[in-house]
Amino acid sequence: MKIGILGLGLIGGSLGFDLRSQGHYVLGVSRRELTCQKAMEIGSVDQASVDLSLLVSSELIFVCTPIGLIVPQIKELIPYLHKNTIITDVGSVKGPIVHSISPLWENFIGGHPMAGNTSAGIEAAQFNLFVNCPYVITPVAKTIKNNLTLLEEIVRSLGSNVYYCSPEQHDRAVSWISHLPVMVSAALIDACLNETDLEILELAQNLASSGFRDTSRVGGGNPELGVMMAQYNSQALVNSLHQYRDHLDSFIKLIEEENWEVLGEKLLFNQHNRPRFL
Amino acid sequence: MKIGILGLGLIGGSLGFDLRSQGHYVLGVSRRELTCQKAMEIGSVDQASVDLSLLVSSELIFVCTPIGLIVPQIKELIPYLHKNTIITDVGSVKGPIVHSISPLWENFIGGHPMAGNTSAGIEAAQFNLFVNCPYVITPVAKTIKNNLTLLEEIVRSLGSNVYYCSPEQHDRAVSWISHLPVMVSAALIDACLNETDLEILELAQNLASSGFRDTSRVGGGNPELGVMMAQYNSQALVNSLHQYRDHLDSFIKLIEEENWEVLGEKLLFNQHNRPRFL
Repeated sequence: MKIGILGLGLIGGSLGFDLRSQGHYVLGVSRRELTCQKAMEIGSVDQASVDLSLLVSSELIFVCTPIGLIVPQIKELIPYLHKNTIITDVGSVKGPIVHSISPLWENFIGGHPMAGNTSAGIEAAQFNLFVNCPYVITPVAKTIKNNLTLLEEIVRSLGSNVYYCSPEQHDRAVSWISHLPVMVSAALIDACLNETDLEILELAQNLASSGFRDTSRVGGGNPELGVMMAQYNSQALVNSLHQYRDHLDSFIKLIEEENWEVLGEKLLFNQHNRPRFL
Repeated sequence: MKIGILGLGLIGGSLGFDLRSQGHYVLGVSRRELTCQKAMEIGSVDQASVDLSLLVSSELIFVCTPIGLIVPQIKELIPYLHKNTIITDVGSVKGPIVHSISPLWENFIGGHPMAGNTSAGIEAAQFNLFVNCPYVITPVAKTIKNNLTLLEEIVRSLGSNVYYCSPEQHDRAVSWISHLPVMVSAALIDACLNETDLEILELAQNLASSGFRDTSRVGGGNPELGVMMAQYNSQALVNSLHQYRDHLDSFIKLIEEENWEVLGEKLLFNQHNRPRFL
């Protein structure tokens, strides 16, 4: 089929590679001419343009822009489309997007491929990025069954593992395992950097190894992404943060009270149950 | 020279390999006969025994027992030794150990090789474990200069990078980059596991990927080690935890106030400065 991709970065570019290799005809739109040229050169799309009208003949469109642009770009795109065109997005937050777009376009379905790497942009696009990664699809009551079947089929062809849930369930789940870790990890870096004794700070920097590196990784990542997670998923994230703070307080209390037995039980419980997330 | 190792686990066993390969004669003591046999078999020591008296002729002794046993074992060991024998330990907390032992043995020097892996025991012992790893030596005012020179020479022969500081500086630095991350990470696992909506919990477990895996790694590690860090370094750790909590609160406040500009600045600051710890 004819598939449009709006936003040719890591996700959009990689989708293009895989969809073309499945035999689809891929139309790509980027805000930057240079990205369009690059996407054509590397074979991630069949045709590319900075003009949204290129997507007019698409039967299905993946919106792969940064999260803050998804809603405005879809609004701009709608006037160009046939009423049967299916739109889906790949944003990492679903509630605000799904509830903004659903009333405007009945053939919209929210989605979130949980794949990526530390690189960004069309240069980072690759084949098989989505293989064995979760791909969450978030239908609502009025989602059209046939659209869902079609989207699921395409998503499965990428090698993804499909999960269905409501936009709210998605946002609460990712607030625990993706957005909360970013803030927890960011506060760790922030606290360490604020050690006022410069000898201790320098020593800490020299001695830090894999434990610090891993725990601080997501908190030292892309600032724009971190802000957008917080901005678009603030309700679920604030809830997770408050609950996290309560658990942190319990740890502090146990240590202050020198209750090593219960601290040990908690750490043992963690050790046993963490693999459920792996 | 004749070097004793008390405690033949990952660190003690690995020290044995390297010291023997430097041409030293290595005497090993373990509490378990089986460990002694194994250490001999794999060539980590020249001689091994469950009896502390084996160490009587050592010129330098590395105490490599679990942290809680270091002080009691050294007290038990002292009656067997010539007064010139140098004792050093490898405990990950230095203040309580150095201040307990220094008054009893003038030839004691605290140390902390910051090497290891997730395995434990003599079976995990390996050559070159300490290469390019920090090795902290924590002398005090009355430490004998010649002993320090000798220990530094041995430590350098392992390929380690030597750092000097006071026991208190060591404990404060590692509370930031090693002990605090464990508790921060443990509270994260604990909070996630306590999600009461079982559908959300299951979804979170299915969707969790590398971000969660890295941020939760040290909090889901060896519970005994976690307790000992807290137990032996509680003062510095509690201080770090309280400061961490303040920084966490600032992040929560920024998100609640929707102050995306300052949140973005903080995340950018983290991104720029985290590499100083890598």
